[in-house]
Amino acid sequence: MFPEPLERLIRALERFPGVGPRSAERMALHVLRSPREEVAELAVALRDARLHTRRCQECGNITLQSPCPICEDPERDPGMICVVEGPREVEKLESAGIIPGVYHVLLEGLAPREGAEPENRALRALRERVEGGKVREVVIATAPDREGEGAALLVREALQGLTVQLTRLARGVPVGTRLEYLHGEILAEAFRGRRPWLPDEEA
Amino acid sequence: MFPEPLERLIRALERFPGVGPRSAERMALHVLRSPREEVAELAVALRDARLHTRRCQECGNITLQSPCPICEDPERDPGMICVVEGPREVEKLESAGIIPGVYHVLLEGLAPREGAEPENRALRALRERVEGGKVREVVIATAPDREGEGAALLVREALQGLTVQLTRLARGVPVGTRLEYLHGEILAEAFRGRRPWLPDEEA
Repeated sequence: MFPEPLERLIRALERFPGVGPRSAERMALHVLRSPREEVAELAVALRDARLHTRRCQECGNITLQSPCPICEDPERDPGMICVVEGPREVEKLESAGIIPGVYHVLLEGLAPREGAEPENRALRALRERVEGGKVREVVIATAPDREGEGAALLVREALQGLTVQLTRLARGVPVGTRLEYLHGEILAEAFRGRRPWLPDEEA
Repeated sequence: MFPEPLERLIRALERFPGVGPRSAERMALHVLRSPREEVAELAVALRDARLHTRRCQECGNITLQSPCPICEDPERDPGMICVVEGPREVEKLESAGIIPGVYHVLLEGLAPREGAEPENRALRALRERVEGGKVREVVIATAPDREGEGAALLVREALQGLTVQLTRLARGVPVGTRLEYLHGEILAEAFRGRRPWLPDEEA
């Protein structure tokens, strides 16, 4: 056994997802070698983040105040909800100024293998928002990988029976790339989704 | 940008070795979803580990008090120093009751790729211990992998010119395993190190 405070730290670090006994030990030894101020900063940051952030009661995004600034923004179209996996995706879409509507952040849905049930809170909350009646369209913007696909299917299931238009981001060749750098799967999906190019349409 | 407390936590977590921006974010989101008491426990554990453990002034192991109980034990042979990479190896050797002597724990030497200089404190301290004159034998018990081999070479360099017997743990087939489960490298090393088996020697 290591000295008790070190053992206790290792056990606390092991609670992080993806951190096994060896990494927890490596992280703990790093703590022992770090300047005291850095360790204190981390300890304070942990508490602050846990105590001073919350999830928006509307969209589920991480925020200081609920409802979050996006949900409170009168300029946003409440008739369009864009479903994303996490706060990082909201950031990305916001900084590109793409979504005129509001968001719904699954978060727990991000990692079904870590014990989230399919019928989770975020999905129930989404259904309730749509049942509210103002929502015309739900745009699914989960990642085009296995996890995101799984989340998309759960969203579709959760909204079953409701009259709302369900859409997804288009798939195809990403603008600005050369074909030679793309995986075959991407090209296959783009081929399956090929669209007629009308004579008067721009390139 | 995420809310400030979340950003601050992510930046603090990124300081851990092997934790990149994505893992730091995943860990931070885990913190937001964890019970407050767990987060508080981790914060306290961080400070306690940093403030209440130290390295033994003799052997460099992590300890509550310096010198550590092993170095203070009058039953141990101070003439034999066993060099190990970290506290975990001390634990292992101690629980098996193998080493009659004392230890020297490199720790920083564990991860040369993370910026430890070859001429580090632990090596200088080892040289000083040996120069003290009481040490007959230094047993190198670093791991038989690339990192451990590197550490072993640094130890040998650090002790150059001193009159002390340098030994290493034997290599070969690990007792209790069937050959079919062993890598070829292990077998090759065991073959190179084969020893005569005397008629009156036990199996």
